[in-house]
Amino acid sequence: MSEKVSVEKKVLSKNDELAAAIRRRLSERKIVSLNLVSSPGSGKTSLLEKTLAALDKDISMAVIAGDVQTENDAIRLVKAGGKVVEPIVTGGACHLDANMVTQALAKINLAGVELLFIENVGNLVCPSSYDLGEDMKVVLMSTAEGDDKPLKYPAMFRRSSAMVVNKIDLLGQSDFDLERARKNARTINAQLHMFELSCRNGTGLDSWYQWLRGLVQAKRNA
Amino acid sequence: MSEKVSVEKKVLSKNDELAAAIRRRLSERKIVSLNLVSSPGSGKTSLLEKTLAALDKDISMAVIAGDVQTENDAIRLVKAGGKVVEPIVTGGACHLDANMVTQALAKINLAGVELLFIENVGNLVCPSSYDLGEDMKVVLMSTAEGDDKPLKYPAMFRRSSAMVVNKIDLLGQSDFDLERARKNARTINAQLHMFELSCRNGTGLDSWYQWLRGLVQAKRNA
Repeated sequence: MSEKVSVEKKVLSKNDELAAAIRRRLSERKIVSLNLVSSPGSGKTSLLEKTLAALDKDISMAVIAGDVQTENDAIRLVKAGGKVVEPIVTGGACHLDANMVTQALAKINLAGVELLFIENVGNLVCPSSYDLGEDMKVVLMSTAEGDDKPLKYPAMFRRSSAMVVNKIDLLGQSDFDLERARKNARTINAQLHMFELSCRNGTGLDSWYQWLRGLVQAKRNA
Repeated sequence: MSEKVSVEKKVLSKNDELAAAIRRRLSERKIVSLNLVSSPGSGKTSLLEKTLAALDKDISMAVIAGDVQTENDAIRLVKAGGKVVEPIVTGGACHLDANMVTQALAKINLAGVELLFIENVGNLVCPSSYDLGEDMKVVLMSTAEGDDKPLKYPAMFRRSSAMVVNKIDLLGQSDFDLERARKNARTINAQLHMFELSCRNGTGLDSWYQWLRGLVQAKRNA
């Protein structure tokens, strides 16, 4: 498999160059960029729907919405009030890469944009290896998934700066233990910002919004 | 990227050879083999826990339990009564491959085994490309995930022979629409056997068990 490994290294190194170029470009424009990663169905799109609606008056946002197939997520985000929403359909690929993001960015008018969300393909493994030029990765997990996910998919939690536990309205209806989830996550990455919320009933969304406002404010002042 | 594609083709072709050898070997022993695939947290391990406990008297079962990291699932399955449980820790790889399964099988005493479960890494994308020599793939999804998963991850649903919708005890607590999920799945694969169940409260498990018994019986008579 050494041939495979060496080709993968080349692919990753090319990816890193493109990601660095994206990072420079976004940084010049003072755009905060977050790469949202999770299992399929943890609620990345739901969180973005809520966020677009809640922060629209204060922050100019853009979304790149990646999926293996369909533009369903992008359509949902436009319906939720997203003004700048660019879909990427990977057509089978299990993660976004910096080349796809470069091409999507070329179709977006970034003038005035302050906050860019990149919604990755639903996959807790592969997206962890691909830098997209983002400021940080935000990993979501839902209380329906099992509290051992940080231990079983450590790379993703190690490379993320924030963790959102979604669907806390379902707590008590599964064996998911919030304290154990926190502990497992801290074992992998003690620096994780943690949010616990429900996109369905709104609990906990305020501190997520506050954190985003803070990131944008800090970049404005930078 | 053509170099990457050609190396991937070689890797897949080598994988197919190993998978064919596994298939011959299992077939000679009249072992039914199922490759369980799903997102992280859909309930593959929970379904196996229930199944091992329920069918232990009638069917001799073995499990190969794959994970990116930790042997947690294998430990759970032994606690649930699994007599032959072999873990595979991929150490980062996003799917099992036929080589890993070959190595795991070498550690298992297959004498008398009638039903082999291979629990793949939690990932709705990559495992769809790797034949493990199984009789069929069984794809799980949970009602907490969203009913559009078959459309967004079509390869997995197309290459599976059965679909298990788990966590139906949570129906009504999300926007998941069971009829829409069925319709989306049939759009991708009209031949899917469908099971709707709850590992938590036991609903629907009987028809799953009945199906497994039928598969084993058919192989005994073959």
